[in-house]
Amino acid sequence: MKARITVTLKPSVLDPQGKAIEGALHALEVPGIKGVRQGKVFDIDMDDMAADAATTTLKAAAEKLLANLIVETYRIELV
Amino acid sequence: MKARITVTLKPSVLDPQGKAIEGALHALEVPGIKGVRQGKVFDIDMDDMAADAATTTLKAAAEKLLANLIVETYRIELV
Repeated sequence: MKARITVTLKPSVLDPQGKAIEGALHALEVPGIKGVRQGKVFDIDMDDMAADAATTTLKAAAEKLLANLIVETYRIELV
Repeated sequence: MKARITVTLKPSVLDPQGKAIEGALHALEVPGIKGVRQGKVFDIDMDDMAADAATTTLKAAAEKLLANLIVETYRIELV
């Protein structure tokens, strides 16, 4: 089965990388951009298991390794 | 309005960073992981405009700056 974990900065945390991208898009004259925030996405291929068990596994993966819970939040999707 | 652009490596392209994450998850004894591929996500805040115009703008942003079309693909979602 496939799953996706999306890790994004908490809204209160500054994102200088996103700011730089926003500036670059303005310089490239892409219109109408008011803000950009960058995050990470992890596409995970895993053994078939019940949705409950898969969510528990992915939660462990996110909290032990993929997300820094001090400044980031994560979202799990089973696909 | 808000939009999200997700940039992922093409399936044929090796992803050493994903491999390293997979190895780390095995070392942390997270069970059942068969593969990991890492991508990027850009959460974009933009002026209100018609969905067509927004998609055109986001396509320009992705192709000019956010994605390297030689090795990556992108997906646009309006949210």
